[in-house]
Amino acid sequence: MHFMTALTAAWQQRNSLLCVGLDPDPARFPAHLQGRQDAIFEFCKAIVDATADLVCCFKPQIAYFAARGAEDQLEALIEHIHAKHPAIPVILDAKRGDIGSTAEQYAIEAFERFKADAITVNPYMGRDSIDPYLAYPDKGVILLCRTSNPGGSDLQFLEVETPRGRMKLYEHVARTVAEDWNASGNCGLVVGATFPAEIARVRDLTGDMPLLVPGIGAQGGDIAATLAAGRTANGNGLMINSSRAILYAGVKANEGEDFAEAARKVALDTRDAINAHR
Amino acid sequence: MHFMTALTAAWQQRNSLLCVGLDPDPARFPAHLQGRQDAIFEFCKAIVDATADLVCCFKPQIAYFAARGAEDQLEALIEHIHAKHPAIPVILDAKRGDIGSTAEQYAIEAFERFKADAITVNPYMGRDSIDPYLAYPDKGVILLCRTSNPGGSDLQFLEVETPRGRMKLYEHVARTVAEDWNASGNCGLVVGATFPAEIARVRDLTGDMPLLVPGIGAQGGDIAATLAAGRTANGNGLMINSSRAILYAGVKANEGEDFAEAARKVALDTRDAINAHR
Repeated sequence: MHFMTALTAAWQQRNSLLCVGLDPDPARFPAHLQGRQDAIFEFCKAIVDATADLVCCFKPQIAYFAARGAEDQLEALIEHIHAKHPAIPVILDAKRGDIGSTAEQYAIEAFERFKADAITVNPYMGRDSIDPYLAYPDKGVILLCRTSNPGGSDLQFLEVETPRGRMKLYEHVARTVAEDWNASGNCGLVVGATFPAEIARVRDLTGDMPLLVPGIGAQGGDIAATLAAGRTANGNGLMINSSRAILYAGVKANEGEDFAEAARKVALDTRDAINAHR
Repeated sequence: MHFMTALTAAWQQRNSLLCVGLDPDPARFPAHLQGRQDAIFEFCKAIVDATADLVCCFKPQIAYFAARGAEDQLEALIEHIHAKHPAIPVILDAKRGDIGSTAEQYAIEAFERFKADAITVNPYMGRDSIDPYLAYPDKGVILLCRTSNPGGSDLQFLEVETPRGRMKLYEHVARTVAEDWNASGNCGLVVGATFPAEIARVRDLTGDMPLLVPGIGAQGGDIAATLAAGRTANGNGLMINSSRAILYAGVKANEGEDFAEAARKVALDTRDAINAHR
């Protein structure tokens, strides 16, 4: 199924704009999982199974798996999501960016090896660095635009001269993606919840394009402001990511085996806090 | 040893500015390696052993390994280079870029798991996305600046307003890295051989900073122009990368087991063509 079709169905059928980010840090796992060979898979699987009815998508962050040589557990995790929760699309958060011949390899990694439904990519190297992902017509390609971190302003907030006039670099990225790169309708953009004014600007520039919004929770972004700025006319259009605030809700005090239940409670509260502003 | 110390020693002792890029594509391997489980490792190992006395560094491109689930072969390859050719630094070409907490994981992947001496990274997310790599004082951090691909101009060649005045985006990246991010002296920049005028500009802006220059060989960049634009006063300062033109020199017609010898011949010719312009 096309990523956008699956995402739209998930927004409606699950009544949720919440994306649970899977950033597994073994140092923060509950005690009973510590030291297990399959701890990363088991931790993420428990979170997935406890929250799947509350989300519009899952977003595993590949760095957390790659740092520990746990690509096999990432494969198993995505396979589990597809088998057990087939309606929920999976975004591989990888932020890849390279010349075309190398991007072809990264596209194989994301879509054929890991079987992700969408990938995050970096626009700095331009159009031909994105084409190999766009060549998969059913997959989502979500480009960094205005990121949630402090350094996001170092480049993205500069004023640039473009063929369409003077604007911020992130606005140029948003317009270029919306007007030039989205011929197949499979593009999205990353815009941080820490910058609601820019979410509103990106929404103005891109119509109903799906926006992946990190930065609520641990990073401090505001849910009401994010929704006011970014929701589409029908109250969708956003994948609002929360990772650490949900994953580790129950293991702050090493509380143990009910970590997935604690994560579910925070996910439920977050979904409802979002829906209160749709 | 510090990456920059190792690189400088390799420039001098090997009398070479050549970087051999390791982009292993199994479809192009000679017949006797086809179908072997360890084909990627064996192919790259043969290339490494045949060219190590001709290079200043090796640059494995992680996408080619990740597309086939061959991270174990990448680990084994870098271990082999360190063991057999300890004077030659290894740059992991990964072009990572993410918020700080995720970048910490990517730094662990590159420097602790794969034991690379340097990594390529993407500047689009700004300073705090680079800090976790800079925190390893002995490692090299090589930032994308002016890339060799056609789409490199889409963002990098835009005119931007900066606190230092009006300039191209790639010039802003070069100045920011040279003046603000390089306090530990471990930064480098990627500037494509397809744009010699911009190599010259980056050289002007960055003093003796090492430049990783892809784009000769298969991409058509000119060696004489690259050297004229980018060499430092003592004839160093460049890591001139060639990947496909060297790797597959002997397997165009499936010539077989002498592929490493054919690769050596092209590497030797390329090193000498470069040295003719130092």
